[in-house]
Amino acid sequence: MAAVNKATHPFDKSRLEALLNRRFFYAPAFEIYGGVAGLYDYGPPGSSLQANIIAEWRKHFIIQENMLELDTTCITPAPVFETSGHVARFADWMVKDSKTGDVLRADHLVGGVLEARLAGDKEARGLAALPVKEDDKKKKKKAAKSAAVKLDDALVKEYETTLAKLDNYSGPELGELCRKYTIHNPDTDNEVGEPQQFNLMFTSSIGPTGQHPGYLRPETAQGHFLNFSRLLEFNNGRVPFASAQIGRSFRNEISPRAGLLRVREFTMAEIEHFVDPEDKKHERFDEVRDVVLTLLNRHVQSAGSTQVTKMTIGEAVEKGVVANETLGYFIARIYLFLVKVGIDPARLRFRQHMSNEMAHYATDCWDAEIQNSYGWTECVGCADRAAYDLTVHSERTGHPLVVREALKEAVVTEKEVAEFNKKNLGKTFGKDSAAIQKAIDDESEENLLAIKAQLAQGATTIKVGEKEFKLTSDMVTIERKTFKQSIREFTPNVIEPSFGLGRIFYCLLEHSYWSREQDVERGVLSLPTLVAPTKVLIVPLSANKDFDPLVKNVSTKLRQAGVFSRVDDSNASIGKRYARNDELGTPFGVTLDFASVANGTMTLRERDTTDQLIGPIDKVIDTVTELVDGTIDWPEACRRLPAYDGKQAVE
Amino acid sequence: MAAVNKATHPFDKSRLEALLNRRFFYAPAFEIYGGVAGLYDYGPPGSSLQANIIAEWRKHFIIQENMLELDTTCITPAPVFETSGHVARFADWMVKDSKTGDVLRADHLVGGVLEARLAGDKEARGLAALPVKEDDKKKKKKAAKSAAVKLDDALVKEYETTLAKLDNYSGPELGELCRKYTIHNPDTDNEVGEPQQFNLMFTSSIGPTGQHPGYLRPETAQGHFLNFSRLLEFNNGRVPFASAQIGRSFRNEISPRAGLLRVREFTMAEIEHFVDPEDKKHERFDEVRDVVLTLLNRHVQSAGSTQVTKMTIGEAVEKGVVANETLGYFIARIYLFLVKVGIDPARLRFRQHMSNEMAHYATDCWDAEIQNSYGWTECVGCADRAAYDLTVHSERTGHPLVVREALKEAVVTEKEVAEFNKKNLGKTFGKDSAAIQKAIDDESEENLLAIKAQLAQGATTIKVGEKEFKLTSDMVTIERKTFKQSIREFTPNVIEPSFGLGRIFYCLLEHSYWSREQDVERGVLSLPTLVAPTKVLIVPLSANKDFDPLVKNVSTKLRQAGVFSRVDDSNASIGKRYARNDELGTPFGVTLDFASVANGTMTLRERDTTDQLIGPIDKVIDTVTELVDGTIDWPEACRRLPAYDGKQAVE
Repeated sequence: MAAVNKATHPFDKSRLEALLNRRFFYAPAFEIYGGVAGLYDYGPPGSSLQANIIAEWRKHFIIQENMLELDTTCITPAPVFETSGHVARFADWMVKDSKTGDVLRADHLVGGVLEARLAGDKEARGLAALPVKEDDKKKKKKAAKSAAVKLDDALVKEYETTLAKLDNYSGPELGELCRKYTIHNPDTDNEVGEPQQFNLMFTSSIGPTGQHPGYLRPETAQGHFLNFSRLLEFNNGRVPFASAQIGRSFRNEISPRAGLLRVREFTMAEIEHFVDPEDKKHERFDEVRDVVLTLLNRHVQSAGSTQVTKMTIGEAVEKGVVANETLGYFIARIYLFLVKVGIDPARLRFRQHMSNEMAHYATDCWDAEIQNSYGWTECVGCADRAAYDLTVHSERTGHPLVVREALKEAVVTEKEVAEFNKKNLGKTFGKDSAAIQKAIDDESEENLLAIKAQLAQGATTIKVGEKEFKLTSDMVTIERKTFKQSIREFTPNVIEPSFGLGRIFYCLLEHSYWSREQDVERGVLSLPTLVAPTKVLIVPLSANKDFDPLVKNVSTKLRQAGVFSRVDDSNASIGKRYARNDELGTPFGVTLDFASVANGTMTLRERDTTDQLIGPIDKVIDTVTELVDGTIDWPEACRRLPAYDGKQAVE
Repeated sequence: MAAVNKATHPFDKSRLEALLNRRFFYAPAFEIYGGVAGLYDYGPPGSSLQANIIAEWRKHFIIQENMLELDTTCITPAPVFETSGHVARFADWMVKDSKTGDVLRADHLVGGVLEARLAGDKEARGLAALPVKEDDKKKKKKAAKSAAVKLDDALVKEYETTLAKLDNYSGPELGELCRKYTIHNPDTDNEVGEPQQFNLMFTSSIGPTGQHPGYLRPETAQGHFLNFSRLLEFNNGRVPFASAQIGRSFRNEISPRAGLLRVREFTMAEIEHFVDPEDKKHERFDEVRDVVLTLLNRHVQSAGSTQVTKMTIGEAVEKGVVANETLGYFIARIYLFLVKVGIDPARLRFRQHMSNEMAHYATDCWDAEIQNSYGWTECVGCADRAAYDLTVHSERTGHPLVVREALKEAVVTEKEVAEFNKKNLGKTFGKDSAAIQKAIDDESEENLLAIKAQLAQGATTIKVGEKEFKLTSDMVTIERKTFKQSIREFTPNVIEPSFGLGRIFYCLLEHSYWSREQDVERGVLSLPTLVAPTKVLIVPLSANKDFDPLVKNVSTKLRQAGVFSRVDDSNASIGKRYARNDELGTPFGVTLDFASVANGTMTLRERDTTDQLIGPIDKVIDTVTELVDGTIDWPEACRRLPAYDGKQAVE
């Protein structure tokens, strides 16, 4: 086996971007109309990669955890988001250029300018500029160009602290920072105005009358909450259970410029796990207890640092770093999913939200952040929304969104209770009767016992307001009664893992990309076989008709084995065809040549090593099927089939 | 095997609807907020059924036909739909109630009222009313109630003819019909106004400035057309090829009232097959040539009839009933898909659009219509959009959307060409030179030959406007030259099969529903195993802990075999649990009881027959796996395993 050194060439984003565009993984939507910022279309390999990620997600979460799948609408009438708080609070802070009126996102502006100044400072001190975090490349470059200026040591420290807490500032605080640090629009060098809120939901109108305003959902979650009663019934009235939904959401971003990482329309996968607020243990927590995670908690960040800690999720829950088992269980499951689809675990951390940063509905939140050329990007959020959503919708609609749990043992209580003879009471006290009854009902247990004793003696006196009334046992008796409570009613809490699939998709492409040692132009996407768009490439040596029945035979057998293959029968050389499919991330290739016709053999090539093996056609098909199913790995395949060294015929 | 008689009870829509609602196949969205007409959420069994239909669609079309999958955005900037013609023409005709201002769809109003009158006429004549076609149940009932009136025979004929042509009327014609037949709003008996166009696209605005209007796509097709150049390149520059997309679309219907059949947001699956306009043959047509279809062509309908014809698609293409092989191929493939997922072929027909009915972009269109309790409903459209879309987008953007095809044999032509000596021409004729050159270039082949002959004699004379010029061979020569054209450039045509998945989903549920002979309350959904939400139900006899390891073992083995199962360990009796899962369409059930613990046996039940077999647990697992994979059928399973007759233990 050839050794693979994927790190020969430094990561070159422009080459990766060119590859993704050229091979149509994705491209700006409406490109021939000039495009629209933040809208992208996925082409054939991108659609297929995304579909495979989604299929694995469905298996990892919905099937393995027996979740209840939902598919709810994007169009949502306004009252739903008024209740959920999105109309009032689902907004970003924007600032306007004081002269041109251009609109910028306030936190991105502050972050971009300060990072550019720090980079300029590094340059002025003769140090290499660190990779910066801000996701606005264009802006950064501009600002950086004009700022190779050394800063005071104290100011450097201030900027760094500000950047670490950037997500925690309110709008007015961002405005204050712009004034304090003289932050202008880097495109024009004009001052910017006071930050204003801009709601991120797309608006529309439902029906022909124009009288029913609606929004496009910015998350799928509300569709789960509104169907809670039906879901609970489907689950035989019991919690915990989880609903899951994969679908489109929409956010009218202010000025999206970070490729797939900040878009206006995207596919999400969301889970709402409904759990008893008094019992957030998870029955399968033991299965993940030993998973080691990289954590960045809120205290560290609030202190202006980004120092991470490694620990098992078991330890994190035990120490209270992560609030409860259910939250911890999902954090670990998210980690396992991301690593399985190909995210580099060394570039994955879980960051806890700081208090001001949290969405209005959340009580605790951990983001799975994946490092990429734009910095650390939130790709999965895992929030404890507590009982917020079910409570507000229930209050607004009057529809109870609660669990009624039959208690295993009914709670039996005894207490003294007053029984009234209303007729006799009324006869004696007329309209005062009701007040008298209320006064007695409100008495403490102790007083009721005293009244009982007095009544046994003949009579008692009760004071209502200024008046006193004398009561006898033909008007009221006090008796000890037994009460049995067999139902407990509660609003469940919600743990919400929420996946931005496009962000995972993009980070995965960055983590998978490298260039061959001998030629930086020969890009490879080392996508795991599990998610690779095509599993096997079938390459006939040439367009010679003799190969046609073999090609048909191999592709039929692979289809029957459930292995997705494609034939490349173009005119290019075999080497070139393999190189093209390395760019598409196709993990295996088989070549049919004259030896196949004569001897019934076929070669098998592995993408990363470019190793080639040879064997009888059916044996190669069996081997590659097992490779794709994951029951064997490449070293095992190398033990089963001899290496192929007839370079002349295939490369 | 017990015989199954599914037709014991007449179809009862209200029972089916109650079942679908109770078991949360789907439900009105935002129900706790009072709901919004035309928006529905899918619950767990509905999501799963839909996902299975989509998975089969992907296999049947994308994989088996090697289509290029796409995933494009729903939000679309306005210029795209201005160009495509949707802004001007994607509209329905609505009428307003003259007093209340209520809005009604004009064709539905006319259809509903005339059908109600015909039903009333039938009643008055003492005949059973025929099932009516109109999809507005509520309106129908109202109108029907007030109209048990006998009509003139001639008027009955007129109404029937009008209804057969209903889809063909323009707005003004619908207005004329309202006046002619005194058609009022049946809810209020008020007159209605003149029909007005209402555009069915939802509008929105992109970005924070409010200056970029956009629409939610009403179909996915434009996303394919705008990416045509990239798709063509991905396909190595060759046609035919097809792109395919499964995704959400949105139509702001005027007053949707037909359940899942007319909704404002829906999942579509669309194929755009790009083909050479001069060659619409299909290379796999032979594979479908003998498929027999029920056809209703446009001539029959224009003559006011709905008489269908049965013929093979081969014959239909040969006779010109269906325009070409590619259109015919897709019609047959659509048929095969629908029958495979469970649509009753006896209730499926292909209806050709009449000329006024066709969408503005189509040149021919056949709808797959499925009969259900609302009438015959279009569930798949198969349109020939010709070169319309690529042409208009290309003209608007200046981006060529064409195929450049290398001709196998270059077309070689010879012709006489003038060669000028510009220096000499200029010296003699000055500013007239250009006009002289143009005049000669414009001459016919014949005249050029004459000029050539004259030049060979010494000189020629050419007339430009009023002037004459004398030319000699030092100013111009005529030579015979060879031209070779090796590229042909053309705009491909598009054949578009477009699937409304929700409509297929609903019709499938109607076609699958029946009640047990012994009890009309015991509803069954005989969904094909291929699409059934759950394949196998695992039923432990009771909550006895002895069954737990067996349940875990069986469910693990089924999961490993790729069979999706669910455990029902609720307290209900086994019979009741089976009945509940008959409602969910679960085709097979296995029961674990004390015999399982003692002897390692398990029973296997089939949903439709309620037959039960028994065998060793592993053998039952193998049998049910083969049943689910479709490699054996139930009669074969009955040959492999003995019948179970220990009624006492399981029902």
